[in-house]
Amino acid sequence: MGLIKNARHPFYEHCHSALNEIRQQGRYRTFTPLARLAERFPLYEEEVAAVPEGREVVVWSTNDYLGMGVVPEVQEAAIAAIREHGAGAGGTRNIAGTSPLHTQLEAELASLHGKEAGLLFVSGYVSNQASLQTILTSMPGWICFSDRMNHASMIAGIKGARGSQTVIFEHNDLADLEAKLAEAPAEAPKLIAFESVYSMDGDMADIAGICALARKYNAITYLDEVHAVGLYGEEGGGVSQRDGVADQVDIIEGTLAKGFGVHGGYITASAEIVDFLRSTASGFIFTTALPPAVVGAALTSVRKVRAEGWRREKMFERVNTFRQRLRAAGIPFTMTPSHIVPVPIGDAETCKRISRRLLTEYGQYATPINYPTVAKGTERLRLTPGPFHTDEMMDEMVRALSVLLREEGVIPGRSAAERQTEKAA
Amino acid sequence: MGLIKNARHPFYEHCHSALNEIRQQGRYRTFTPLARLAERFPLYEEEVAAVPEGREVVVWSTNDYLGMGVVPEVQEAAIAAIREHGAGAGGTRNIAGTSPLHTQLEAELASLHGKEAGLLFVSGYVSNQASLQTILTSMPGWICFSDRMNHASMIAGIKGARGSQTVIFEHNDLADLEAKLAEAPAEAPKLIAFESVYSMDGDMADIAGICALARKYNAITYLDEVHAVGLYGEEGGGVSQRDGVADQVDIIEGTLAKGFGVHGGYITASAEIVDFLRSTASGFIFTTALPPAVVGAALTSVRKVRAEGWRREKMFERVNTFRQRLRAAGIPFTMTPSHIVPVPIGDAETCKRISRRLLTEYGQYATPINYPTVAKGTERLRLTPGPFHTDEMMDEMVRALSVLLREEGVIPGRSAAERQTEKAA
Repeated sequence: MGLIKNARHPFYEHCHSALNEIRQQGRYRTFTPLARLAERFPLYEEEVAAVPEGREVVVWSTNDYLGMGVVPEVQEAAIAAIREHGAGAGGTRNIAGTSPLHTQLEAELASLHGKEAGLLFVSGYVSNQASLQTILTSMPGWICFSDRMNHASMIAGIKGARGSQTVIFEHNDLADLEAKLAEAPAEAPKLIAFESVYSMDGDMADIAGICALARKYNAITYLDEVHAVGLYGEEGGGVSQRDGVADQVDIIEGTLAKGFGVHGGYITASAEIVDFLRSTASGFIFTTALPPAVVGAALTSVRKVRAEGWRREKMFERVNTFRQRLRAAGIPFTMTPSHIVPVPIGDAETCKRISRRLLTEYGQYATPINYPTVAKGTERLRLTPGPFHTDEMMDEMVRALSVLLREEGVIPGRSAAERQTEKAA
Repeated sequence: MGLIKNARHPFYEHCHSALNEIRQQGRYRTFTPLARLAERFPLYEEEVAAVPEGREVVVWSTNDYLGMGVVPEVQEAAIAAIREHGAGAGGTRNIAGTSPLHTQLEAELASLHGKEAGLLFVSGYVSNQASLQTILTSMPGWICFSDRMNHASMIAGIKGARGSQTVIFEHNDLADLEAKLAEAPAEAPKLIAFESVYSMDGDMADIAGICALARKYNAITYLDEVHAVGLYGEEGGGVSQRDGVADQVDIIEGTLAKGFGVHGGYITASAEIVDFLRSTASGFIFTTALPPAVVGAALTSVRKVRAEGWRREKMFERVNTFRQRLRAAGIPFTMTPSHIVPVPIGDAETCKRISRRLLTEYGQYATPINYPTVAKGTERLRLTPGPFHTDEMMDEMVRALSVLLREEGVIPGRSAAERQTEKAA
């Protein structure tokens, strides 16, 4: 009897064909290695084979909206914690991984949102997934009312809660939400999960309106403020703070990785809700605590962001200036009530090509946003100008977009090549 | 019509009663805030109200097994990355969050395990959850054969994969695994999920044996090496490297937060499996990349751990010495083939009380391991001596355990109080 050679496992073939399909649909993602230059943000250095020292690029797609990650005091807080406590936490929160910095940051975040307590997670994704899944499996009969445009991390938590029922309401549509709340059994425990700023369209929820419905139908509210914390409200407590309704929201979730410029996620809520999640959420319990350096940097960042409103003002001034220049140049963008400036492209391949050409021909970087991040047909560039984007950078970016969007047929008008031909004629 | 006051939402009452129940079962967890003293590891400083400057504690429960998080070159790599690139990544891997350090570390980890490619996740928990859930939903009909003692993060991924079937085999029981593989339909895609070192019992899997079964029944193998990477194998590639069978494992998962002393998780596998997960796993795509400082520190740590075998040798020498001293003092512990030294207690309250008394009376910290981390009735102290625990520290810890385990009735013998009474008589 000879050796039996097993067939290759079908998963290998599946990966191969799935990747081919993704490529054919033009949505294969290539990560552009970009080294952020802390002292010259928003300049990054791109690794280019032909240029040994790399090439400088202006980045328009950072989620470090205020540039807090490169504020010297934030960097120094991280460095001090590394020198004092080492590079990692060394254990879960329960296994010697809770430093005094962790408890201080949790108290600071609770205070920011006017809640009794806060809880850190290794990421905003995990804070949503672990919290929602744990809440929605805590009692029988939960019904989760989930905005159609909720982030993948909320969906992961909601879907992960087997046994609970999910009712998707139309995006930001309070009439639809109310109709669906009214249909549900009065005695079922209900939760409404939504975001304040939807990151890809830059639109906002009517938090007060949703909270009023929650009171009427006795639902608890779970609000994701990840694209709002640091940026909205008198102290950067998010849209719920700006609107004066934070006390009406049961659970506010946020991130330390965007407006605060560092890393990690969190929730804030009543002391017992936080203690319950701390005591039961698998994704919180069974994972190494955030490094003290991350926590120390975040603590400094949150305190500075709360105290220094000029960063928020400067960001909105820059966003408005950028919009004016886009408008003047005839470049279409979605007007949003937030800081996010989407430039619609509408096709995955074109979106990727424009992004690539912006980078290689103009040294400007804007990430192409394709499926599965947004629906097919709504591909876009998503720009987030910040306090650090200068007038000159804006002029260059507007000029580059103006040329490329015409050349790529996104907006009408002669392409540069055509103009060149005319001139030569 | 007066105002209608809504009933308080039942979730608040649920949290209250669930916490009461947890307290009554003696498994309410209080995190001890311990500040690691990088220059004096394994010494930590405990915040004590009565002692303004804190109190020094010897920690026996760190998962930074080799102390890599306090190796100066690792700290300096983190500091250099913070100065150069800032405190956070500023975006997802796709949105300007991929620095050259990320791609270098992924290549280094692939090389460590002899695989074509590697992929970073924000934690080991997420690497297991996201990878397993994505794989097990990739094709119809998946059957996952999961060791009964697998970690919560693997269970989260396996349970999260709706539509797939889960078959739990008895812990490390290859006969049971084979019987269950043989029962399953031959054409169904199969995956065997297991760990090399089980962290709470410290026992090990027969990786070669499981891989042989995988070949026989055409299953792919998913191996969690989080408590083994850095510690086993010629270069710290884990038990699969030590046993010379890494090439037989399809997917090796590991962590940067334990043997490598930093933060984050990863998988390594064939280029196409990694690319498939990179392109489709929600928990990878929709989350901020690890900070460059974490990645830079981990890169330095992995390279040092690969090159410097003396750290592993020293750890095992210390573990053996500690076991000898425990044995000489008549303190029961579970003999394991790994570096983990469990001291069985068997009751949640007693376990917590001994841990608390070790801390307050002796300045020694060993985390009490209770449900849900281990089954009820198997509560324990879990000790992980490392290269940095001195003979003197061991003597003190053994003395403390010797007194407390007798006083608390875990082992027979007169308590100190009884001896005191006898003396007085």
